[in-house]
Amino acid sequence: MRTIDWVDGAVEIVDQTALPGDLRVLRLHTVGELIAAIQSLAVRGAPALGVAGAFGVALAARVHGDDPGALRQAVQRIETARPTAVNLARGAQRAANLLPLGPDAVLAEACAIRDEEIAASESMAARGADLVTELCGPRARLLTHCNTGGLCAVTVGTALGVVGELHRRGRLTGVIASETRPLLQGARLTSWELTQWGVPHRVAVDSAGPFLMARGEVDAVILGADRICANGDVINKIGSYAHALGARRAGIPFLVVAPESTVDGATPTGGHVEIEDRGAAEVTAWSDAVNPAFDVTPADLVTAIVTDRRVIRLDRGERP
Amino acid sequence: MRTIDWVDGAVEIVDQTALPGDLRVLRLHTVGELIAAIQSLAVRGAPALGVAGAFGVALAARVHGDDPGALRQAVQRIETARPTAVNLARGAQRAANLLPLGPDAVLAEACAIRDEEIAASESMAARGADLVTELCGPRARLLTHCNTGGLCAVTVGTALGVVGELHRRGRLTGVIASETRPLLQGARLTSWELTQWGVPHRVAVDSAGPFLMARGEVDAVILGADRICANGDVINKIGSYAHALGARRAGIPFLVVAPESTVDGATPTGGHVEIEDRGAAEVTAWSDAVNPAFDVTPADLVTAIVTDRRVIRLDRGERP
Repeated sequence: MRTIDWVDGAVEIVDQTALPGDLRVLRLHTVGELIAAIQSLAVRGAPALGVAGAFGVALAARVHGDDPGALRQAVQRIETARPTAVNLARGAQRAANLLPLGPDAVLAEACAIRDEEIAASESMAARGADLVTELCGPRARLLTHCNTGGLCAVTVGTALGVVGELHRRGRLTGVIASETRPLLQGARLTSWELTQWGVPHRVAVDSAGPFLMARGEVDAVILGADRICANGDVINKIGSYAHALGARRAGIPFLVVAPESTVDGATPTGGHVEIEDRGAAEVTAWSDAVNPAFDVTPADLVTAIVTDRRVIRLDRGERP
Repeated sequence: MRTIDWVDGAVEIVDQTALPGDLRVLRLHTVGELIAAIQSLAVRGAPALGVAGAFGVALAARVHGDDPGALRQAVQRIETARPTAVNLARGAQRAANLLPLGPDAVLAEACAIRDEEIAASESMAARGADLVTELCGPRARLLTHCNTGGLCAVTVGTALGVVGELHRRGRLTGVIASETRPLLQGARLTSWELTQWGVPHRVAVDSAGPFLMARGEVDAVILGADRICANGDVINKIGSYAHALGARRAGIPFLVVAPESTVDGATPTGGHVEIEDRGAAEVTAWSDAVNPAFDVTPADLVTAIVTDRRVIRLDRGERP
């Protein structure tokens, strides 16, 4: 199953707000519908957002092909629908570069991005599984955060793709999935995917992660990224930084798995990235709230970044 | 208003499971009802649990005064209703020491424990406020975790009592209250108390705390304790340790406020404390979970402990 795809002239996505209760496919026919799906997190995850951005431009090219002004505006709305993951704007721009050649060329480029993300997931899964076994031995106990499975990409996933590959190889003891407040991507989506795959796992509240590491129940933390800066700072779901602090104190590896499409050499450090605040309503009905959706894990807390082309050992001084 | 009191022959508590929606008082007439209230967290917080334990023995003395076997059994059930906070067993034992003198003597001792906790709260509030201003200057921005207000004690509270005192003194800019999954004592109870007091505050998901510190939005972390070990290790609500790691990395003070009744010189380190696991159902309906209700913050991450009698500067090598 693909999380996002182009089917019969529209974008089809698995509605991630309805899982784990309902496995529902949404058909998006307009740029407006696509942007709404991005902003409600019906489609989410850096690699999937890159594909969504490209398919969004393909939709725009079909509707506004004869109106350059409207087309330009639609592309810009797609690029800025969410600010933090670099993939969304990057996917949209790549597709937009083909606009002079017409809607079919744009769609072909979008499908190429989709296919590249599928290939990238498979490559990361193999390379990441090798690294985990090298660092943790043959029976790894992993902690992961947010959702980085097939749902965040097109299939397979990033960090959770590595988990799945380790399970297939018989090199995994079990997984702790942190629930990932406020929207519970861990408890809802990661747990659902791990159940589908038959991977033994337990959910924990986010703030328990560092303590479970201190208690010796975790061999490594493995998670994804929404943007990787030139200096190796990692932007990812809020809570990643706290887990990195826990891993450092416990002396265990902190591993980031993300495709090259997430590496952003144009952004020097995490301090230069706009961190989306998604508002109080996601957190509580009873008071005001501060709700940063992402955080910055400084490069010095990251052991290694696994991409579809390389392993970047930040602990050995390598940089993206 | 008192969170817990003895009124007309029964224990009255504010039902903390019903807040912030309902402010409801429960009357507990039997040891069984009291234990159920403790285990459901209708009454919670280390100081309040000490008072609850003592009042529980007072109830038992009235019912089983003529049956030493039943009385002994009731005291033991009260002492072990929850395992982590030292105050519960300690309050019950103090009251039980008076059993040979009859039910009225037991009740008088329980009321004395209640009154001591009220006095301790007032003393901590003043001493803690002095320390915060000394360390953070006259406009402190604080982050707190779980609920440590009047609801966790009898009135006033521990760490939140300090917050209230700073507010009265005009020495507080604002508070970030972490929501405290899984039972949301921060979002439900702390936010409710701060609203009653008129203290400006925002709620955050637990895992955002360390990032908000890194971003420079917090001058100190201030929270309570369920048990303080002889070496200075602090047992407190799950998530405290992650916040301590965040405070250390951000270079800001990590302050613990708890009455002397929480200091447990008989327990050498945090590794010796039984950490209650409250089961998967509190965390998620969709999978298995690991749910430690508390964690251990090692003494080296604690700047100072404020009690009703002293300030213990762990950062200067002092120990409880």
